Amino acid sequence: MTQQPSRGLADVVAAATALSDIDGRAGRLSYRGYDINELAGSATFEEVSYLLQRGSPPSAEDLSGYGAEIAQGRELGALVTADLGPVAHHQEPMEALRTLVSLASASDPDKDSNAADANLRKAARLTAQQPVLVAGYEAARNGREVPQADTELSLAGNLLLQVTGTRPSARAAEILDICLVLHADHTMNASTFAARICAATLSNMHSAVMAALGTLKGPLHGGANEQVMLLLEEIAKNAQDDPVEAAASEVTARLGRGEKIMGFGHRVYKVEDPRATILRRLAGELAETAGDDTYYRMSRRIEETVLAQKGLFPNVDFFAAAVYHYLGIPTDLFTPVFSVSRMAGWTAHVIEQHADNRLIRPDSEYIGEAGLTWVPLVAR
Amino acid sequence: MTQQPSRGLADVVAAATALSDIDGRAGRLSYRGYDINELAGSATFEEVSYLLQRGSPPSAEDLSGYGAEIAQGRELGALVTADLGPVAHHQEPMEALRTLVSLASASDPDKDSNAADANLRKAARLTAQQPVLVAGYEAARNGREVPQADTELSLAGNLLLQVTGTRPSARAAEILDICLVLHADHTMNASTFAARICAATLSNMHSAVMAALGTLKGPLHGGANEQVMLLLEEIAKNAQDDPVEAAASEVTARLGRGEKIMGFGHRVYKVEDPRATILRRLAGELAETAGDDTYYRMSRRIEETVLAQKGLFPNVDFFAAAVYHYLGIPTDLFTPVFSVSRMAGWTAHVIEQHADNRLIRPDSEYIGEAGLTWVPLVAR
Repeated sequence: MTQQPSRGLADVVAAATALSDIDGRAGRLSYRGYDINELAGSATFEEVSYLLQRGSPPSAEDLSGYGAEIAQGRELGALVTADLGPVAHHQEPMEALRTLVSLASASDPDKDSNAADANLRKAARLTAQQPVLVAGYEAARNGREVPQADTELSLAGNLLLQVTGTRPSARAAEILDICLVLHADHTMNASTFAARICAATLSNMHSAVMAALGTLKGPLHGGANEQVMLLLEEIAKNAQDDPVEAAASEVTARLGRGEKIMGFGHRVYKVEDPRATILRRLAGELAETAGDDTYYRMSRRIEETVLAQKGLFPNVDFFAAAVYHYLGIPTDLFTPVFSVSRMAGWTAHVIEQHADNRLIRPDSEYIGEAGLTWVPLVAR
Repeated sequence: MTQQPSRGLADVVAAATALSDIDGRAGRLSYRGYDINELAGSATFEEVSYLLQRGSPPSAEDLSGYGAEIAQGRELGALVTADLGPVAHHQEPMEALRTLVSLASASDPDKDSNAADANLRKAARLTAQQPVLVAGYEAARNGREVPQADTELSLAGNLLLQVTGTRPSARAAEILDICLVLHADHTMNASTFAARICAATLSNMHSAVMAALGTLKGPLHGGANEQVMLLLEEIAKNAQDDPVEAAASEVTARLGRGEKIMGFGHRVYKVEDPRATILRRLAGELAETAGDDTYYRMSRRIEETVLAQKGLFPNVDFFAAAVYHYLGIPTDLFTPVFSVSRMAGWTAHVIEQHADNRLIRPDSEYIGEAGLTWVPLVAR
């Protein structure tokens, strides 16, 4: 019997997962049973990535082995290295990452195996590789070398070091680490769902991750954090007087024209996204450290305006924009940095899909004409 | 309210479309209201591609304009041309196509626009480009040049010319043209669904098509035609005596071990897939022309065996294998040739999704543990 769900599969259960859970009414998110509020600041991104991909928190020994896999996984294959330059000069960041991850499968010894152990190894490699690809892209387009990874730094610390070319403060590395923890997984979001559909044909992990990367790029998904920053930058640039007041009037004007403000509202949360709560705090802290809280105050004012006028709460993308900005990440790399984190979740979902697979193949409702007669070209 | 559908979204309506319709009980498939049996042999792939992407059958003038777009779209960009060699030597065909299509966005003047006119132009370009990428890959790995496209030949004829390096007979070109018509669209199959999920985040057409390519690769989807041929080749190679008898016993043995035979059964059709009916006939014709009907007779015998023992009908992939083989297409390019055709459908679905968009974002059922307490690493 065919079921007719709401458009866009809203509220339809498309898969079962033991990876993450959202309580949209309580505003709670958990990974494998651990509340995100407990993890943020207590667990590193490497621990969370291990937890998602391998099922339970790592022991010290597990984590050291995983760290070694991550360190090894930073090595880029020959095809990727050769293409970093041309791609960085001719493709936008997310398009370039799609290309580079696709090329990377060539040098992965497990590329064609969907076996559990092969998938675990690939998941670690892809997680290790993604920050190096983002940093490699940034360095290549600026004609500089990527600094050597520092074994003393976390994945987040090395991402900041390699993207900005400057060693981050301990607190900056901690804050990016929290961001990566917050973005690592989020149930059946569009990119993860695309990855699972791909994996469910028994295609390989690289293909599934590519499908996810292309999907994350969209401004209704991962692309939103960049759109938020572009709005802040545009308002600040055009403000005649106080940019905070300008933010309120610009957003009011846009809402009045029926336009959408990126970074607000979420299909699943009915109250505030718990990730937004943490990111707001981090944005405030970084603004204070930076000695320039303009973007933070603008963000707060936009938040108030959208809540008052539309009743919408900020989602994960809204304050992530200010946080990434204060961390010195170029605006067009915000979505790529999101992908560094979500790689942990995507790969974990592929592992879970392959472990108990069924093809994901829905029906569609036909809404076109029927029973037409084809008239050959000569008679048309 | 959350709805709990069957696993793998079987029988769940995930989207509305005016592109194709399947009547699974009657064994009927139609594109925009035209039955596939009417189209096959009467409409060229170019006409069908136009019909899907632009909404109605082209007039002679429309078709001539579309043909000019296709001819222009054969030109590959600089990044793609530079990478054809390295990629052909280091990536499997479907992995290579993923890479090359991702690179191709760099030279597409409409790459970042989802506007209706830009999408129409990109759809024509991607449809034109795909056969050239497949042929370019085949030529590069064999160290030869791709023959110039012949303006007298159809897209199917040029595909055969450029992949095999030999000018095809008129009938061979016609038969491949029918195959491309049969494979052009098929409602909410996994690759098309992945493309729509990607497009629904307002990501671009290239990203959506990449998601689809990665998904088609899977052996439970487009990869099946290659698996069918590999089985036929393996049985023929190992047969002590009559390969037709060997096919029956090998398939019986595999079914007895609970193994799946690729190319049989379909989630939507309860009777024979109408495309299989046409492809069976074409395989028989080509076998006769070739003067060697071994693979055809083996296919028929496998069909009988699977129907008798499992009650499953062949699907589109089963006889496509023999047809492509007789047409001289290398076995590992079967799925890429499928992608040449399905590109018409994928791009049409992206156009349709962008024209009336809503994010596709389902829920999931959480089946893991809950309420766990995170113990910091030092205390674990």
